[in-house]
Amino acid sequence: MANVLLGKTVADKATELLIERVAQLKEKGIEPTLAIVRVGASEDDLSYERGALKRAERVGVKVDVRALPIDISQAAIEKELEMINHDTSIHGCLLFRPLPKHLNEKKVCDTLRPEKDVDGITSASMAGIFMGVDTGFAPCTAEAAMAMLKHNDIPIKGARAIVIGRSLVIGKPVAMMLLKENATVTICHTRTVDLPGVAREGDIIIACAGAAEMVKADFVKPGQTIIDVGINFTEDGRLVGDVAFDEVEPVVANITPVPRGVGSVTTTILMQHVVEAAERALSV
Amino acid sequence: MANVLLGKTVADKATELLIERVAQLKEKGIEPTLAIVRVGASEDDLSYERGALKRAERVGVKVDVRALPIDISQAAIEKELEMINHDTSIHGCLLFRPLPKHLNEKKVCDTLRPEKDVDGITSASMAGIFMGVDTGFAPCTAEAAMAMLKHNDIPIKGARAIVIGRSLVIGKPVAMMLLKENATVTICHTRTVDLPGVAREGDIIIACAGAAEMVKADFVKPGQTIIDVGINFTEDGRLVGDVAFDEVEPVVANITPVPRGVGSVTTTILMQHVVEAAERALSV
Repeated sequence: MANVLLGKTVADKATELLIERVAQLKEKGIEPTLAIVRVGASEDDLSYERGALKRAERVGVKVDVRALPIDISQAAIEKELEMINHDTSIHGCLLFRPLPKHLNEKKVCDTLRPEKDVDGITSASMAGIFMGVDTGFAPCTAEAAMAMLKHNDIPIKGARAIVIGRSLVIGKPVAMMLLKENATVTICHTRTVDLPGVAREGDIIIACAGAAEMVKADFVKPGQTIIDVGINFTEDGRLVGDVAFDEVEPVVANITPVPRGVGSVTTTILMQHVVEAAERALSV
Repeated sequence: MANVLLGKTVADKATELLIERVAQLKEKGIEPTLAIVRVGASEDDLSYERGALKRAERVGVKVDVRALPIDISQAAIEKELEMINHDTSIHGCLLFRPLPKHLNEKKVCDTLRPEKDVDGITSASMAGIFMGVDTGFAPCTAEAAMAMLKHNDIPIKGARAIVIGRSLVIGKPVAMMLLKENATVTICHTRTVDLPGVAREGDIIIACAGAAEMVKADFVKPGQTIIDVGINFTEDGRLVGDVAFDEVEPVVANITPVPRGVGSVTTTILMQHVVEAAERALSV
């Protein structure tokens, strides 16, 4: 029987601390503000937006939603981001992706100033994560995975960490963040030979391959901590992670569920980044 | 008895191919040109410079050495790099580091345009390596390590690769390059628990910790390929790598010596990047 690490506990604690920091900013006349740039109105984006708005309200962050038409031109969306860059009342910007196919997504992302890049989408943020310096911010999901470990006092320094997945949104950044905390990090992927065997070497497994319930009983051993970053829907409409929870949970020491795990921390991290961006802007 | 993988074999083969590419560029009126920016005249820099000049001559790359005074100001060195950025006759720039302490090295590096960053010193090149895209270039030493594997037909895809060291010059970039070639990559460092045991898991070991002869017999097993990127001098003045060659060589399948290993390929990779930069400039 594992400890089931709930996102809510982590989010609630972090929210408490954020409320204090926002109060301090407001005393100085600063209202931390997030711009959300949404192209079109997909249900995924709207659902995340609702969560973000709710969390922002609780923390005291102002949100300014820029809903843009689905057929917006490259020039027009870049101009929108330029306006956000120059607006000193906005501290952070969340851009929903993927963007429609007619837009050059990388170019749009790199228009944003790294200081306002609170979800780690610019090349400058990526370079910062790789180099271990505070240019921009890490993607919120990667940092949410780290927050689950840290809040629950899971030892990272000297631990073997197995990252399953190598995306830029989660796998690669979380690998760099674990490395910065002195874990010994192994990055696995679809071409990894004997993935279950490699996974069993870990003290920590970060499952972020984007494949429903692919981490099964033969991937794990007693004592491990399993952080499940997956969000997948099965054919019958169930929301499941990258970990087959029912077979893995009885074996390991700690595990995050899906839902109610890492995903419940992401918007809190987003608010943390906005507050941090506002604090950084103040200290420049 | 291991195969001893010599740098010269790799460098000679690559040089042959480069001579052809340079000839094709010259037919189009392009003379691929490298600017070397050297502050002061340390023996390390001068020694590398001599090697680069020799290799450049063999390949047909023109070199323009900018020797700057040791007390040059931040503004003056940035201006020098700006001039190189704007000079269309220069395709690549090598800046010797470390710079004197009074200079902001990161700021100097990031002055250089990534298109001309043939030794991977800019944040943009770092982001490119991390993201797996061709912005700028990888550090030459990291690419030289990869060239030793590829030229010798060492299987990378699906292999377990153990990188010992996490510097930005070699450890982190070579990890990303191995990952791009579909190796399963483990990054180790001074805080790794049971480093010999972790190293023995590898099919490939990249030793780049910067510690003389630290990879000993208990780090290795039969069948492994050992790439030694270390350049260290012992108290009695011997040049040695990060691998204790005499005890490791009898165990493993392939090993690069120091000297005459990876280090002999670096200047050839530098020339390859200059030629590549000239070709890219032509195709823009």
